[in-house]
Amino acid sequence: MIQSVAFIGLGAMGYRMAAHLPKHFNDVYVWNRNSEKAKQHASEFGTQAVDLQQAVQADIIFSCLPTSQDVDGILAQVSPKKGSIWIDCTSGVPDTAKTQADYLAKQGVYFLDAPVSGQTIGAENATLTFMVGGDAAAFQRALPAMQAMGSLIKLVGSSGAGFAVKAINNMMMAVHLCAAAEGFTTLKAHGVDLNEALACINASSGKSGVTETALPQRILNREFPLTFALPLLAKDTGIAVDLIRDARLSAPVIGLTQSLIQAANALAEPNSDFSTAVKLYESWSNITLK
Amino acid sequence: MIQSVAFIGLGAMGYRMAAHLPKHFNDVYVWNRNSEKAKQHASEFGTQAVDLQQAVQADIIFSCLPTSQDVDGILAQVSPKKGSIWIDCTSGVPDTAKTQADYLAKQGVYFLDAPVSGQTIGAENATLTFMVGGDAAAFQRALPAMQAMGSLIKLVGSSGAGFAVKAINNMMMAVHLCAAAEGFTTLKAHGVDLNEALACINASSGKSGVTETALPQRILNREFPLTFALPLLAKDTGIAVDLIRDARLSAPVIGLTQSLIQAANALAEPNSDFSTAVKLYESWSNITLK
Amino acid sequence: MIQSVAFIGLGAMGYRMAAHLPKHFNDVYVWNRNSEKAKQHASEFGTQAVDLQQAVQADIIFSCLPTSQDVDGILAQVSPKKGSIWIDCTSGVPDTAKTQADYLAKQGVYFLDAPVSGQTIGAENATLTFMVGGDAAAFQRALPAMQAMGSLIKLVGSSGAGFAVKAINNMMMAVHLCAAAEGFTTLKAHGVDLNEALACINASSGKSGVTETALPQRILNREFPLTFALPLLAKDTGIAVDLIRDARLSAPVIGLTQSLIQAANALAEPNSDFSTAVKLYESWSNITLK
Amino acid sequence: MIQSVAFIGLGAMGYRMAAHLPKHFNDVYVWNRNSEKAKQHASEFGTQAVDLQQAVQADIIFSCLPTSQDVDGILAQVSPKKGSIWIDCTSGVPDTAKTQADYLAKQGVYFLDAPVSGQTIGAENATLTFMVGGDAAAFQRALPAMQAMGSLIKLVGSSGAGFAVKAINNMMMAVHLCAAAEGFTTLKAHGVDLNEALACINASSGKSGVTETALPQRILNREFPLTFALPLLAKDTGIAVDLIRDARLSAPVIGLTQSLIQAANALAEPNSDFSTAVKLYESWSNITLK
Repeated sequence: MIQSVAFIGLGAMGYRMAAHLPKHFNDVYVWNRNSEKAKQHASEFGTQAVDLQQAVQADIIFSCLPTSQDVDGILAQVSPKKGSIWIDCTSGVPDTAKTQADYLAKQGVYFLDAPVSGQTIGAENATLTFMVGGDAAAFQRALPAMQAMGSLIKLVGSSGAGFAVKAINNMMMAVHLCAAAEGFTTLKAHGVDLNEALACINASSGKSGVTETALPQRILNREFPLTFALPLLAKDTGIAVDLIRDARLSAPVIGLTQSLIQAANALAEPNSDFSTAVKLYESWSNITLK
Repeated sequence: MIQSVAFIGLGAMGYRMAAHLPKHFNDVYVWNRNSEKAKQHASEFGTQAVDLQQAVQADIIFSCLPTSQDVDGILAQVSPKKGSIWIDCTSGVPDTAKTQADYLAKQGVYFLDAPVSGQTIGAENATLTFMVGGDAAAFQRALPAMQAMGSLIKLVGSSGAGFAVKAINNMMMAVHLCAAAEGFTTLKAHGVDLNEALACINASSGKSGVTETALPQRILNREFPLTFALPLLAKDTGIAVDLIRDARLSAPVIGLTQSLIQAANALAEPNSDFSTAVKLYESWSNITLK
Repeated sequence: MIQSVAFIGLGAMGYRMAAHLPKHFNDVYVWNRNSEKAKQHASEFGTQAVDLQQAVQADIIFSCLPTSQDVDGILAQVSPKKGSIWIDCTSGVPDTAKTQADYLAKQGVYFLDAPVSGQTIGAENATLTFMVGGDAAAFQRALPAMQAMGSLIKLVGSSGAGFAVKAINNMMMAVHLCAAAEGFTTLKAHGVDLNEALACINASSGKSGVTETALPQRILNREFPLTFALPLLAKDTGIAVDLIRDARLSAPVIGLTQSLIQAANALAEPNSDFSTAVKLYESWSNITLK
Repeated sequence: MIQSVAFIGLGAMGYRMAAHLPKHFNDVYVWNRNSEKAKQHASEFGTQAVDLQQAVQADIIFSCLPTSQDVDGILAQVSPKKGSIWIDCTSGVPDTAKTQADYLAKQGVYFLDAPVSGQTIGAENATLTFMVGGDAAAFQRALPAMQAMGSLIKLVGSSGAGFAVKAINNMMMAVHLCAAAEGFTTLKAHGVDLNEALACINASSGKSGVTETALPQRILNREFPLTFALPLLAKDTGIAVDLIRDARLSAPVIGLTQSLIQAANALAEPNSDFSTAVKLYESWSNITLK
């Protein structure tokens, strides 16, 4: 039985995720680099703002940070309770998950790489998807903690598998983004009404998460709100190509897309949403996707 | 008011599409190269099997043939009734649509390029999507005839625009297919459970029509049923790259995908479903997508 | 025996090429859109500035114009002497060569597509390469006229073959340019001395015409002199991809390179040399190739 | 003054390279995993077959092995003489060179990464090219030893730079190979005489080391002699893409080529020459490059 749960990292995702935990568990500890935010969380949701060393005494410890490097930085400072399970929701590096799992195993602690999808709205509504890598028994024990925040929770393989699925998901999204940018630029050049074409494609075999969401809500309306930063997409596509290199596979479309996202990121303004990658294509023609 | 409607080409799609017309229109003529099929359709659905010259005396004439060349072959043999509207549901060539529209305009006949999506199930249930190019007034007049068979009917631009949207839709689907093949090969190489990963991705930003349909129903189950032939996909991706060349655009991901689909088609058995394109990737590794 | 030779189009190449003809033939006619240039050529080299209709009464008629369309424009105005041979040195379109050959054949005139390489220095020294498509007997009869200007003259196939070889040559050069830009950007990023690296590569298996000439003489010295315009390279790479599409082949590296050259051309200043295509890559990093 | 030189690794390259050393240096030690080969070398060229520990007492120690991992295997077994210079001619990994240089520096030994090009004929004639990374003073001291075997010897940067230049050279060659395969397949499909086309291109801007050597001597004659193995080219192209990833660059043409070489390698017979990579393209069409 899980008595205590900790949440380390109260960013846009973590703040909303940790808010659900007090409904299900007796002791919920939160920690954030900027401790004001932890105190605010405690007063808003009934969690307890604690120091790092206390946080890692919980039965279940969640972390949700920008990169695997940041998680390593925390791991180096703490000694988690023996028998606890560390669940890292960062979009991290698969190889690093293996190292982290080995490192914690020596302290009698389990590690699950458990990145999430669903964005802030999914965090708010506790409808996130968890893609989890690691030990099956630890996964079963930790399941109730993840169920407090998510609606689809899958063990996809051993350590690193969760990070791998997230990286490939984001990589596929990047390919779909390029396909949409190229396809809709072509239609615009031929005088097609893009909104009517989009309606048709979203009812047809060529649809994707990008045509259903990013294209109408971010690109064709020219709003490009910052919800998932382009540098993070560039990072994730890099993780995907590293997985391909490690396995000595040929993945030409993914490889090309990674180059293009990298180029788009190099040309973008700071703090650009990933959807601004379409501007790379717009710079190559006098066509605006609207 | 539309009194009479003809349907030329009773293939897997056309046979099912024409079946809905007698519910809405007084006179429904059908014609097929193999006339036995037309007679069977007449006895099954109450249509009238007629010769070509009679068919084109209808107010609305549908054609649904494998290629634009086949449509040209029919057009050369007939003189449609002045004032009628010819609606071509073939997945055709945009430039040819313009020529066909000009050719028929000289006979006082309107031409709409109106390819459909939704597959045989959509034809059966009258839930097809029509993406239509051509004259707006002719589109309005012809709308009831298309509504008899479809649930989403959009005028996307002038002549050729319908074919362009269909070609780009299929091209985007081809890109998504390559992305899925590459991504899932990579996950398999890293020991990930593909079915669990698919469940996660279909709940996340990386989903597409391919991950929702082709991947579970055709590929991961290794069934590859023939519903849309790979050579037709190769043809459609070729139409897409011709649109890009015509407009002097840069579309590297689409261009690369067209090369890969062409290669996959060259290696495939005759009568292969488009989903067998993933076997190109499987030949490059010892990984099977299942 | 060839008595008279005409040269139509006295641009940077044609002006120098025609200068060699009076050494070998009795009557040499020259024509240029701007007739002042023809008069200057006549006074400088002993040729005869004539009108178009007189020019095409020669035994051998050379044309050297920017595009196949320009040649069509001339052909529409003239009636060449029956039995004469028209040698087009334009970097033209293979399919157009077939049309032009058929058109002239009806007038009893032979057509050879005979683009040249070797640049202005080769034109000056009569050391050009002629890659020729057309009738073998006509090629043999016309050989002395080409030998007056070139040192390597090859019949590579039937009508259009000469243009095809030129387009593929330029396309391969474009690929080599991208390879050099990408490779040397990578070396620069890793702190390698580019000039020393270039010396090594030019003595090794990775060398190309680009590493031997364009890289040291145009790019690494940052001079980018205009000798072959980027829009013309974009045109030629387009001809190459059209050849690939016509033959239903897969050529992914060429296809990708054509997209990149098209993009580089879209971003370039007017009147840019082809070598400025490397600036596309430079815009994607903070690395300058010098 | 260099008194003694050792050569570790008497493969096809090393055996011929070490043969020149006795002409210039008093004591020349050779070592090979299979010691029979070392004894044969000693009796043929007047070198001394010694054990590993004695070999590394030389002033200059050359190694020439299949991979950087093999070099690490040797380094772990020996303690080279303080003040000696280790020159590794392997086509190795740039990052590993830095590790190896640091490791040896702690023993007072210099490390130069110094891969060579020129093939066995260059080794035989002492006309190799050395592309060297490492300390400038060590390079100067070691120069006479390299001059005994090479005619172009360049310091291209600090540790790892030599390996980087070799990897990029081989990567560029791989791109040129794909360009040639795609270009010549296209010409063949259009009925062009490939040998005549090759003569033209080798006199024009589209030439490369591949069109000058591999195409006529290995491919068009269908001989594919094994001189540089396809798996080694696949390894080297992998090193190149790792350099690109490390530097966060976009190199789409190189990335795509690496995928294709990897695929060609997966499909090839064991012990295939790199030039057999063209068979990947041949499998996609019914065209043979001859």
